Amino acid sequence: MRIAIVGAGALGLYYGAMLQRSGVDVHYLLRRDYDAVVRHGLTVYSVQGDFHLPQVKAYPAVAEIGQVDLVIVGLKTFSNHQMAALIRPLLKKTTAILTLQNGLGNEDVLAAAFGSERVLGGIAFLCSNRGEPGEVHHLGEGRIRLGEFAAGLTPRSEALAAMFRSAGVPCEAVADLRRARWEKLVWNIPFNGLSALLDKDVTEILTFESTRELVQELMLEVIVAANAQGLSREIAGPEFSAQMIAFTDQMDHYRPSMQIDRAEGRPLELEAIYAVPLRQAAAAGMPMIRVDMLYRLLLSDEKLSSLC
Amino acid sequence: MRIAIVGAGALGLYYGAMLQRSGVDVHYLLRRDYDAVVRHGLTVYSVQGDFHLPQVKAYPAVAEIGQVDLVIVGLKTFSNHQMAALIRPLLKKTTAILTLQNGLGNEDVLAAAFGSERVLGGIAFLCSNRGEPGEVHHLGEGRIRLGEFAAGLTPRSEALAAMFRSAGVPCEAVADLRRARWEKLVWNIPFNGLSALLDKDVTEILTFESTRELVQELMLEVIVAANAQGLSREIAGPEFSAQMIAFTDQMDHYRPSMQIDRAEGRPLELEAIYAVPLRQAAAAGMPMIRVDMLYRLLLSDEKLSSLC
Repeated sequence: MRIAIVGAGALGLYYGAMLQRSGVDVHYLLRRDYDAVVRHGLTVYSVQGDFHLPQVKAYPAVAEIGQVDLVIVGLKTFSNHQMAALIRPLLKKTTAILTLQNGLGNEDVLAAAFGSERVLGGIAFLCSNRGEPGEVHHLGEGRIRLGEFAAGLTPRSEALAAMFRSAGVPCEAVADLRRARWEKLVWNIPFNGLSALLDKDVTEILTFESTRELVQELMLEVIVAANAQGLSREIAGPEFSAQMIAFTDQMDHYRPSMQIDRAEGRPLELEAIYAVPLRQAAAAGMPMIRVDMLYRLLLSDEKLSSLC
Repeated sequence: MRIAIVGAGALGLYYGAMLQRSGVDVHYLLRRDYDAVVRHGLTVYSVQGDFHLPQVKAYPAVAEIGQVDLVIVGLKTFSNHQMAALIRPLLKKTTAILTLQNGLGNEDVLAAAFGSERVLGGIAFLCSNRGEPGEVHHLGEGRIRLGEFAAGLTPRSEALAAMFRSAGVPCEAVADLRRARWEKLVWNIPFNGLSALLDKDVTEILTFESTRELVQELMLEVIVAANAQGLSREIAGPEFSAQMIAFTDQMDHYRPSMQIDRAEGRPLELEAIYAVPLRQAAAAGMPMIRVDMLYRLLLSDEKLSSLC
């Protein structure tokens, strides 16, 4: 299978490298890392063992990649307005597009541009950060849950999940992608926002009682809103939030991507992680008061996003 | 009338200077400003005209002041545990104590220590900051509303209000001190907290739509909680918050005290401005959800307060 990775940040580089190592034909669209990867290949520093790929098919422009069987999208969601133009040259009739981006609304953008039948979404539970150019740090986790945008389980989604598993990435195909996306938001909404707003990592947030309680309150708001969306099965409020917090307690001072984005002056993924979920929650009659407040506080410092 | 100013920060220095200039016998307990004031006097840079007081009765310790007729308390509320010890040496049988501190609970501390009949509270609408030692900047406003802690209007509260007016400070005696305190909280709760959390001045907060709306939402929460306290008269929700916002729109990049306290690494007045009002609101069955969230966010960065 010929795969293009569009948006090869920490997430795209890590999954691309895992797939390539298992024998998949991976092609990377690179910007910051292009020169380094062409010269020295790609190095993954991973809690599961470091590895180096000396030969990497790297491209500075998407037109040079040509048609592929699968596009994996790892773009930051604030670049979604560029997404269709970046992906179009890669498509043949049967090409599938799998977005591993954060939040809600990404599949909708792809479906509007290329038809909903091409589109799959995946939720990545991955702790990773970029290092020097040509390097990526895998700090923990890595599991993916993926599903069709416009259907339940399909042979295609099962096959993609199997491909990831063959590459050493725990992966399951899910019948209800929206439910999986909302489940991930239960984590992203509190931890991304609080880490960026307070410039604290997840361990600092959970160690301090006042923010630990706030995490839980935010999670419960998201779960109530999620359960108003007509999901195939309800998310169990207190149990699921307790699981998510216990899961995060095991991370050692992990800095969510939004904390890093803010510290480095980049735009934040506020639309996909906050604005779209807030609109969907309000539309379902379950406004998320605390989430809305966190969003407004983040917006107030977000001067760069309007430049992109 | 012999007056002691205890806690002579920007507020205490300003009102002390105004009273002294009008002929009142004012005695200042000073720490940071003591040396400068003894040598050079006290300078007020004011939007209503600068003035200088070359001779100022400054003291490094309260015991040297002796008994007074009135104690004006301008201490930061995080120093309230020192308040009784600082005030006790100043009292004779008829001494009144007027606290101009922020938030709720200050009169209660004084009443517990010295009896409720001595205690008055005042709400200062004052934009002022400390300058170099011996200097205070009066940036705008200055009005005081004061009242008895344990009674309605009295000859004493009317006389004190008249004294301030004679000194050029607009002042009215109010019958319902609790109502006046809650009205002030409608301003303090959004602007103190947001300015400290986001490190933005009031103009920046109000210029940006997302925080301007958040200010209004916070104000309405405070008003609902206030009106559940059995005040003598309800605070009119949207009208009063609109007035407070219009009033603040006229301030030119004013930095609330909490923003400055945080920027300079000092403890924040979270107990008086947030914790006590939150407890009183919850006790009245009107929990303030957004205010609670703001409080928790502020608490999470508040490492110094535990040291005081």
